[in-house]
Amino acid sequence: MLTRIDHIGIACHDLDATVEFYRSTYGFEVFHTEVNEEQGVREAMIKINETSDGGATYLQLLEPTREDSAVGKWLAKNGEGVHHIAFGTADVDGDAADIRGKGVRVLYDEPRRGTMGSRITFLHPKDCHGVLTELVTSAAVESAEH
Amino acid sequence: MLTRIDHIGIACHDLDATVEFYRSTYGFEVFHTEVNEEQGVREAMIKINETSDGGATYLQLLEPTREDSAVGKWLAKNGEGVHHIAFGTADVDGDAADIRGKGVRVLYDEPRRGTMGSRITFLHPKDCHGVLTELVTSAAVESAEH
Repeated sequence: MLTRIDHIGIACHDLDATVEFYRSTYGFEVFHTEVNEEQGVREAMIKINETSDGGATYLQLLEPTREDSAVGKWLAKNGEGVHHIAFGTADVDGDAADIRGKGVRVLYDEPRRGTMGSRITFLHPKDCHGVLTELVTSAAVESAEH
Repeated sequence: MLTRIDHIGIACHDLDATVEFYRSTYGFEVFHTEVNEEQGVREAMIKINETSDGGATYLQLLEPTREDSAVGKWLAKNGEGVHHIAFGTADVDGDAADIRGKGVRVLYDEPRRGTMGSRITFLHPKDCHGVLTELVTSAAVESAEH
């Protein structure tokens, strides 16, 4: 069951400049940064609020580390902006299987590693009214439940 | 001060079909619907979670009521997808003035009426790294504070 907006993924050309925009304009501070080589992104997480399911909602700022990454190709086509939205769930495997069973294309056979040790998968935007949609189970929820 | 993700605004061609997608795929139910003639949209709010500032985060599904509305023009250019993100604040007037003072273009001279009696304004996406950004003070917060 999807129980929160986990994050909004925003693609940018220059992560440092974009982080500085969010800091100087709104006062938002970076909560976490990492490089995900598999996804081909350098990313900064900004925590905006906590959520009623015990999680939190973040902005995820994404700079491609290579032009042929998914985010790099998306940026070249669309320019900077909202790249995807992510719903949090305690059971990404179960929800992905359920959603696949409804005929929505799930992009990975098995969930992959996401930010801060989470496990993630994506739904095809053409099956989701144009919205690239991520499902994410955070590491904290996993360790509490397994 | 911006204290939550209030909603993610998603533009669609057919509101009823998109509501049905979110219901049948994820189990999400519509919390509220309305027509905003000033904005030229018919909209459905889906509450996803409550937030640590006493508010909530919604998906806001938007179908244009006329082709020359902002959302109508955006849809014609971009197709369905994420149209804007909205931050919640107890003081949209103060935050908009503060942000305008930093050189970011605020689209309205004064906040206008948003969903469920809220007061809203928008920041120019070209000043926000490609993200059309809304600021919103909900009616509930207003009535509690004024």
